[in-house]
Amino acid sequence: MTALPPGSTVGVLGGGQLGRMLCKAAARMGFQSVVLTPEADSPAAQVASRTLVAAYDDLDALAELAAMADVITYEFENLPAAPVREVLERRGAVVRPSTRALEVAQDRAEEKAFLRSAGVPVADYGVVDTAADVEAGLERLGAPALLKTRREGYDGKGQVWVKAPGEGRAALAALSHRPAVLEARVAFVRELSVIAARGVDGATAVFPLGENRHEDGILRRTLAPAEVSPETEAAARAVAVRLLEGLNYVGVLAVELFELADGALIVNEIAPRVHNSGHWTLDACVTDQFQQHLRAICGWPLGSPAAIARAEMINLIGEEVDRWRDFAADPHARLHLYGKREARPGRKMGHVTRVWPL
Amino acid sequence: MTALPPGSTVGVLGGGQLGRMLCKAAARMGFQSVVLTPEADSPAAQVASRTLVAAYDDLDALAELAAMADVITYEFENLPAAPVREVLERRGAVVRPSTRALEVAQDRAEEKAFLRSAGVPVADYGVVDTAADVEAGLERLGAPALLKTRREGYDGKGQVWVKAPGEGRAALAALSHRPAVLEARVAFVRELSVIAARGVDGATAVFPLGENRHEDGILRRTLAPAEVSPETEAAARAVAVRLLEGLNYVGVLAVELFELADGALIVNEIAPRVHNSGHWTLDACVTDQFQQHLRAICGWPLGSPAAIARAEMINLIGEEVDRWRDFAADPHARLHLYGKREARPGRKMGHVTRVWPL
Repeated sequence: MTALPPGSTVGVLGGGQLGRMLCKAAARMGFQSVVLTPEADSPAAQVASRTLVAAYDDLDALAELAAMADVITYEFENLPAAPVREVLERRGAVVRPSTRALEVAQDRAEEKAFLRSAGVPVADYGVVDTAADVEAGLERLGAPALLKTRREGYDGKGQVWVKAPGEGRAALAALSHRPAVLEARVAFVRELSVIAARGVDGATAVFPLGENRHEDGILRRTLAPAEVSPETEAAARAVAVRLLEGLNYVGVLAVELFELADGALIVNEIAPRVHNSGHWTLDACVTDQFQQHLRAICGWPLGSPAAIARAEMINLIGEEVDRWRDFAADPHARLHLYGKREARPGRKMGHVTRVWPL
Repeated sequence: MTALPPGSTVGVLGGGQLGRMLCKAAARMGFQSVVLTPEADSPAAQVASRTLVAAYDDLDALAELAAMADVITYEFENLPAAPVREVLERRGAVVRPSTRALEVAQDRAEEKAFLRSAGVPVADYGVVDTAADVEAGLERLGAPALLKTRREGYDGKGQVWVKAPGEGRAALAALSHRPAVLEARVAFVRELSVIAARGVDGATAVFPLGENRHEDGILRRTLAPAEVSPETEAAARAVAVRLLEGLNYVGVLAVELFELADGALIVNEIAPRVHNSGHWTLDACVTDQFQQHLRAICGWPLGSPAAIARAEMINLIGEEVDRWRDFAADPHARLHLYGKREARPGRKMGHVTRVWPL
C-alpha cells in the first residue's frame, strides 16, 4: 500500500484516552478520525471528527466504520476479535495491527505460547481450567504463584496470588472460575517497558526504554529514558523487533519487561497498541508514540524515536486530578487531561510529564 | 476570577487553523471546546467538542455560544466587534482578549493611534479618506508610501504602493475607495515578531523573538529563537509588555516588528491572538502559544515560554502541501496539517517545523 494522503480517514475502535490521543495525532497529520465506542460521552469523541456510539460487536456500526475509514486501528486489546475479523477484514477494511495481534494479546495462554515460539524469555507458566490444574501447577512452579484470567485482565484486575498448596479452589473462585494461567513468581528488581513500531515497509523503530513504577497494579509513573546497561537496552530492542517481526506487525507495540538482578529480561506481557508507559514520548521525543502509530498504520515512513529530553510521567488517578493547580504552576510540568467528567477511584484522569534537558 | 477548572468550556470565534490548534490545546488541558464559524466543514470543527455553524453576527448563535462557554476567545481580529460586545459582554460572557483589543487591532488608524499613545515606535503615517489625503500624505511622508485599507487587510491583501505624486486616485481605486492609512516606507533590514502573553493576574511572559520571511505578503518561514542583539531582544520585550499593559490585555498578543540597520525596532502591526509566526513554539518551547493563550484566558498561571530547541517553521501554502511526503521522510521535521480539503492558491494548508538542539 502507498501512504494514505492527508484527508484520509482513520477509524479507531475505543473512545478512551488512548483513542483521544490517537485522534489528536491524526488531526495533526491532516487525517480525519472516526471513533467507534459504546460510551455516550467519551474522551475521544471530544476531539474526533466523528463518533459512532455503538457496542463493539454491533455489526451495522462496524460496517459503517468500515465504509468511512481508510484504515482502522484500536486502542485496547479486549475487543471481540470475531466481529472485527468478520465484518471488517472480510469487507476488505484495512485493520492494523492485524486481528492476529489482537487474538494473541487478549488471551494470556495464546500470548505466552506466542512469546515462547518467538524465542523471547517468559516466566514459566501453566494453563489452568480446574482447581486440580492449579495444584499441579503449584507443584511444578513452586508457591507462591500468580493466577491470572486468560482474558480481560488489566490494571491488576483479574489476578490473584496463590500462596500455598490447597488454595487452588479458592483462588479460582476469586476469579469466578474463568480459564486462567498460573505464572511462576519472578524475582524482578525493576519493571521496564519498551515501545516499538513497525511500518508497512517492514522498517522498525524502538523508543528508549521506560522504567515503570506500579502501585496496586496500576502504573503510577514512568522514568525515561531508563538508566539501563547497554546490554539490557540492546536485549530489550532485540525482543521488541523479534516480536514485531513474529507477528508481521504494523503499528506500535508495547512490551512490558521484568529486569532480574543480573540484568536479564523476562517479557511480562505485550499490548498491541499505544501504551500508558509511552506517554512520556509526547513531550520528550522527536516523534511521539501516537504519531508513530499513525505513521505506521497509514503507510508513512516511521519517524525518529530519539529522546530530546529526560522525562518523568506521572499518572493522575481518581481524585489526584484535583492537583492540576499544582502542576499548572510547575514550570517543568506539561499537563495532559483526558476530559473525563467523573473522577472515580482507580480511573486514569490525566497525566503530567515533567521534562528536563537530557 | 479563579482559574477555570478542567471540564469547563472554552468558546472560540473562528474555525480556521488557529481555532483548530486552540481547540487541541484546550483538549490537552481537559477543557471542552465549542467553535462558532460560518464554515460548514472547518479545520477547527474536526477537533472541537462542538461546533455552531453560523455567521459571526448571528445574534442567536452568539447567545447560544455565551450560554455554553465559560470563556470566549477568537482566532482572528476581523470579527464584527459590535455584536460580540453587545451580545456576549452585555450577557455577562467573559470575552478574552477584550473587545477593546479587537477594536484597536481591526482598524489600522485606531491601531496606530494606540501604538503611538503607548509610546512605542511606529512608522509615520496619515489617515486617508480621499485622493487629496493621499497626495497630501505623499508630500509629507515622501514617495513611495504604502496605502493600506483601515480594515480587513491580511496576508498582504488590501494594500498597494503609491510610487509617485498624482497616483493617489488610482491607488485608492485599487482599494475600492475604502478608508485607508498611508504609511511612510520603512527601510528595514529584517522582519521580527514577538509573541507575548498576559495573565488575569497581570503576569507577563514573552517568547523568544522569531525572524520572519514573507513572500507576496504571506509568511513563508520563521526562524526562532531569532539571532538578535541583547539590546534588540530587550527592546522587543519592553514593547510587548507595554502593549499588553496598555490594553489591560489577557491572552496571547503578537507584535510584528521591523528591525532597522542600527538595530532599532518599529512596530508594524499587532494581532490580538495567537499568530502564524508563533507556530514554532508548538515544537520548541516548554509552553506553546496556544496553551499559553488558554492558560491566560482561563485564569491559569502562565507557563514558561523558554525555548528548548532551535526551530525553522515553514508554511505549506496551496499545493505545497503535496510535499508532505518529503517532510514525512525528514527525521528533523514535525508536520502539522490543517485538515483543509482544497489546496487553493495562497491558502495556508499546514506547516512544518524543523527542530535542532539549541
